[in-house]
Amino acid sequence: MAALARSVLVTGSNRGIGLELVRQLAASPQPPQHIFATCRDPDGPRGKVTSPKIPVNTVDLPSIRRAVQVVESCLEGQGLNLLINNAGIGSHATLQPETLKRVCINRAWVSLCQEFLPLLEKAAKGAQKTGLSCSRAAIVNVSSKVGSIGLCLGVLEAPMYPYRASKAAQNMVTRCLAAELRDKGILCTAIHPGWVKTDMGTEQAPMTVERSVQGILAVLGSLSQETSGAFLDWEGNSLPW
Amino acid sequence: MAALARSVLVTGSNRGIGLELVRQLAASPQPPQHIFATCRDPDGPRGKVTSPKIPVNTVDLPSIRRAVQVVESCLEGQGLNLLINNAGIGSHATLQPETLKRVCINRAWVSLCQEFLPLLEKAAKGAQKTGLSCSRAAIVNVSSKVGSIGLCLGVLEAPMYPYRASKAAQNMVTRCLAAELRDKGILCTAIHPGWVKTDMGTEQAPMTVERSVQGILAVLGSLSQETSGAFLDWEGNSLPW
Repeated sequence: MAALARSVLVTGSNRGIGLELVRQLAASPQPPQHIFATCRDPDGPRGKVTSPKIPVNTVDLPSIRRAVQVVESCLEGQGLNLLINNAGIGSHATLQPETLKRVCINRAWVSLCQEFLPLLEKAAKGAQKTGLSCSRAAIVNVSSKVGSIGLCLGVLEAPMYPYRASKAAQNMVTRCLAAELRDKGILCTAIHPGWVKTDMGTEQAPMTVERSVQGILAVLGSLSQETSGAFLDWEGNSLPW
Repeated sequence: MAALARSVLVTGSNRGIGLELVRQLAASPQPPQHIFATCRDPDGPRGKVTSPKIPVNTVDLPSIRRAVQVVESCLEGQGLNLLINNAGIGSHATLQPETLKRVCINRAWVSLCQEFLPLLEKAAKGAQKTGLSCSRAAIVNVSSKVGSIGLCLGVLEAPMYPYRASKAAQNMVTRCLAAELRDKGILCTAIHPGWVKTDMGTEQAPMTVERSVQGILAVLGSLSQETSGAFLDWEGNSLPW
């Protein structure tokens, strides 16, 4: 199996899906040459990744810019192939305006895309291939089925208004980016990881994080021009917006 | 033609679509008994509605709560039938984090729904009818076709990321509210007014505000259980999320 990408950056990689993405990428037969695992506090009690430690608070622009410098210097003139925006928080709030500020955190990934865009463009230009793929240049946003407006009426067991709204907004920006960056050779896709046994998904979830991430990585390997701008689950099934 | 509703509140009614909604409602053969026209600064240079003047800055909770008191007192024990969330701002920004704060303004209508909910529930309970309709109790959100994620790839002439994202988020919450409030007898629907010659739509727009609002009011009169949670244009056509 070919390597997914030469260089990958995963946000929110101190636990849950982010940590497992880093683990499986590192353990794969042809691992990426560079795996950048970022989280808010790599030295904190939840910082399980030991190296490289890149502190990135996605709501703090200076910390993002420092991370870009670190990544750029490690890449030694090459671009970043794959940016996986995994950091985010859940919320079970209903119509509570005070919890809407949490939506802000879930949209902080936009700054990340913006700041890493030059490195992604460099990867796209420097690639020995055409078309769109994660091995060339890609932004993958970890979204959620509860962010599907179309499915919303059916899955309203939990209200989660701010989380749902933030994910619908993220899906919109994913699609805008896919349209805008297509001609630059950068793919952009939203992935629903399934309901997974993590701190956010709770123990009630039916799926292990290992299984979800196996699926996600297989889907990432299959992404192309046709699935840029799509909203797929961990098995590659298309979801309604 | 029966009256659309006994009482209607329109936000952002100092100009554009909001002002025309108030004008046509007031001029209809069977006008609502109460039309509450709110805007940020009714005495300001753009405050064209002379009476009643209800200052509501949708990002300012105390001003919303004062408005609820004024409305409640005018209604003399009856509920509010129809809340039209029209206030909002446009934005042509692309990936600029600083403009993302504008998204906050476009989500302020959630506070409005929350604060007016008791009056809407009162209207739903006090109605001499079952089913869902604007004449019983309803929240209508003025959305936009550019908030359609499904149509996004085709209409990306203007980037407008924050505006698009805020409208996708609004559509999501519209649908969540429709599901949550259905059993309380409250309808909730998103309406795309078309591209209209207003300050926001500019003179380039193909449609007059009079024509758009005629369409919107006809659609509002037709809303029912089947179209609660829907995303319709000013002609009643269903739009993809």
